[in-house]
Amino acid sequence: MFKLIHQDKNSEARLGQLTTTHGKIDTPCFMPVGTQATVKTLSPLELEQAGAEILLCNAYHLFLRPGIEVIHNAGGLHRFISWPKTILTDSGGYQIFSLALFRHITDEGVEFQSHLDGSKSFLTPELVIEMQQGLGADIIMPLDECVHYPCANDYARIAMERTVDWARRSKSILTDRLDRQLLFGIVQGATYEDLRKECINKLLDIDFDGYAIGGVSVGEPEVLRYNIISLLLDNLPKSSARYLMGLGMPEDILQATEAGSDMFDCVIPTRFGRNGTAFTHEGKLTVRNSPYISDYQPLDSECSCYTCQNFSRAYLRHLFNCSEILGLRLVSLHNIHFYLELMRNIREAIQEDRLVEFRQEFLNKYNQNNKP
Amino acid sequence: MFKLIHQDKNSEARLGQLTTTHGKIDTPCFMPVGTQATVKTLSPLELEQAGAEILLCNAYHLFLRPGIEVIHNAGGLHRFISWPKTILTDSGGYQIFSLALFRHITDEGVEFQSHLDGSKSFLTPELVIEMQQGLGADIIMPLDECVHYPCANDYARIAMERTVDWARRSKSILTDRLDRQLLFGIVQGATYEDLRKECINKLLDIDFDGYAIGGVSVGEPEVLRYNIISLLLDNLPKSSARYLMGLGMPEDILQATEAGSDMFDCVIPTRFGRNGTAFTHEGKLTVRNSPYISDYQPLDSECSCYTCQNFSRAYLRHLFNCSEILGLRLVSLHNIHFYLELMRNIREAIQEDRLVEFRQEFLNKYNQNNKP
Repeated sequence: MFKLIHQDKNSEARLGQLTTTHGKIDTPCFMPVGTQATVKTLSPLELEQAGAEILLCNAYHLFLRPGIEVIHNAGGLHRFISWPKTILTDSGGYQIFSLALFRHITDEGVEFQSHLDGSKSFLTPELVIEMQQGLGADIIMPLDECVHYPCANDYARIAMERTVDWARRSKSILTDRLDRQLLFGIVQGATYEDLRKECINKLLDIDFDGYAIGGVSVGEPEVLRYNIISLLLDNLPKSSARYLMGLGMPEDILQATEAGSDMFDCVIPTRFGRNGTAFTHEGKLTVRNSPYISDYQPLDSECSCYTCQNFSRAYLRHLFNCSEILGLRLVSLHNIHFYLELMRNIREAIQEDRLVEFRQEFLNKYNQNNKP
Repeated sequence: MFKLIHQDKNSEARLGQLTTTHGKIDTPCFMPVGTQATVKTLSPLELEQAGAEILLCNAYHLFLRPGIEVIHNAGGLHRFISWPKTILTDSGGYQIFSLALFRHITDEGVEFQSHLDGSKSFLTPELVIEMQQGLGADIIMPLDECVHYPCANDYARIAMERTVDWARRSKSILTDRLDRQLLFGIVQGATYEDLRKECINKLLDIDFDGYAIGGVSVGEPEVLRYNIISLLLDNLPKSSARYLMGLGMPEDILQATEAGSDMFDCVIPTRFGRNGTAFTHEGKLTVRNSPYISDYQPLDSECSCYTCQNFSRAYLRHLFNCSEILGLRLVSLHNIHFYLELMRNIREAIQEDRLVEFRQEFLNKYNQNNKP
C-alpha cells in the first residue's frame, strides 16, 4: 500500500506513493481537514481542483452528528460528502480527550459526555473500528489515549500501554474484511523517549499498514516536540507510511518532511482563512487590516488559485469588513491551494535531492517581511 | 438597447433582448442581488455557470463600504468583483428610506445617517449619478423617493413630483458621456392610479432608456399591488424594457411576466438559501427539518445544479445542523439556479405562446405539496 519512490540524498525526506481503494496519493501529502464531513467553507469540487488527493474526517464528530447510520445508509462517507478520492478517518481519541465535557477511561474503553449536548456515550476500540467500517473510510485509526503536556511518566506509561492494547484489539476485528481498510498504529508515550521507542516496537510486533505519531502539539515546548518527532521517525520502518498527526504551519511541515514524515493534516489553513489570514510566499497576511483597503494586488502574486487569479486584497478586505461569506471562502481556498502547492514543490525538491535548499529558500522569503 | 423579439399571443408577456457594453441579456430576466458587491455566499464563477447574465449591486451600500473611490481605482465594479457581464446599480433611494437611521429630505437631496455607524451624508441626484459613473455600472438608476404603505395622497404626490424632478436632473448630467450608461426612470406614486399614470407620462417626456416600477412590496395588500403593476405595464411603452423592482417569489415573477415585466431582482433566493429553505418544482422545502435526516434524494430531482447533482437532503440537513457554511452555499446556489432556470423556461414558453399554460402547470405542481 505504501511504495517508497525516492530517498532524498541530503535528508531523511522521502518521496512515496500510498495506494487505497479510492486512489493513489503522492507523499509527502497534506490532508485538508473535514471535521464534520466538510472542509469548512469549501466544496469537494474546489478541493479536487486545488489538487487534494485525500481528506481527513473525524469519526467522533460524525458519530455525534449526524450519526454513523445516517452516513452508512447514504452509501458511505464518500457518497455522503461527494468525494471520490481517499478519505482517512481519525478515531476520535484526540477529540474525546480535548473536547468532551467529561471522560472516564478504563482498559475496556472510554465513557464521555458529548461537547454538544452533554449526552453520554461509551466507546471501546472495537466500536470505534466498527464506526469507521460503517463510514467506509479508506484509512482508519484505532482509538488511542492522548495525554497532555506535562504528563507524569507513570501515567504516560499506562496511556501508552493502553494505546498499544487498544491497537491490538482494533486490528484483531479487521481480519475478516474483504474490502480491506488500511489501519494505522498510533505512537503515544508523551515526551518520554523510552516510552515512545517501546510503543513503536510493540506496534511493529502487531504490524500495521502505516504508523502515526500522536500526542504532539499538545502543549509541549517546540524543541522537545522536534526531538521526539525526529527520534520516532528514525525508529519507524522506512518501508511504511509515517503520518504526523495534527501539524502544522508551513515551517513545521518543511521541518518534519526533512526528518522523514509522509503525511500531514491540520485545520490551520481553513481556520486562518476564516479569520482573514492568508499564507503567501512572502509570509502571512491579515487581509482585513487597513493597509489593504486600496491594495489591488492579489493575495500572493506567485499563486495560481481562483482567488489570486480573480480578486484583489482590496476586494477581500471589503468582504471581511462586511462579514461576507465569500471572503471566508476565498481566503480558505487560497490557503488550501497554498498548502497543496507547497507539498507539490516539496515532492519535486525531494525528487531532485534539493529539499534542504528548497526549505532554506522558502523560509528566507517567507520570513523576510512582517506583513500587517 | 432593448429589442422586442416576440409578443406572447395569449398574454402581455414579451421576449426581448437588452444590450449593454458588457453583453446581451435575454428577457424576461432575473438579476441576482449582490448588495455589497457579492451575491451572498456565491462566487462570480458559480453565478456565470448558473447562467446569470446580469447582477444588481447597490450604490448606497458601496458608497458606505468600501467607498466609491476604492472601487473606481480598482478599475470599476466589474473588475473589483470579477464579473465580466452586465451590472445594474440601484441608486440607494429605497435603502435610504428603509435602512438609514435618520433622513431629512428636501427638493435638493437627502441627508441621512448611515445604518452602519451613524455617520451623516448628504446625497443629491447628481451625486448619486456620479457615484454610479464612478462604479461604471452598465445600467444605472436615478435617486428617487420611495414611500411606504399607507401614504397620504398629498405626500405621495410630493414624492412622485420630486422623483420626476430628480430623474430629470439625473439625465441632464449624463449627456456628455461617450461610454454611455443606460439610465432608467423610476415610476413612483404609491397606490394612486392617477399619480402613477402622471409619473409615467412625465418620465416619458424626459425619455429614459428603460422604465422601472418602484415603490411596490412596501407593505401594500397583494391585490392592490397587482392592480398597480398591471396598470403601469399597460401604460409603459412596448418598445422599452420594464423593470419591476424588488419582486419576488416564483409566483410573483410568473404573474408579473404575464402582465409584461421584463426584469426582476430579489434577495429571496439567497436569503432563503441561507436559512435552509430551498425552492423546488414541488414547492419550498426547509432542509434543516427533521424529516430530511435520512432523506437521500436531491433537493429537487428535476434540477441539474451542482448541489442537486452531488448532494442529498440528508447531507444538506447535516451541514445546516452543524452550522457549516457549505450548507448556506449549496442551498443558495440551488435557489439561484432554480430562479434562472425558471426564467429560461418562461422565455421558452413565451416564444411558443404558451406562457399561460406553463404558469398554470408550474403552479399546480409547485403548490401541490406542503413540504415541511
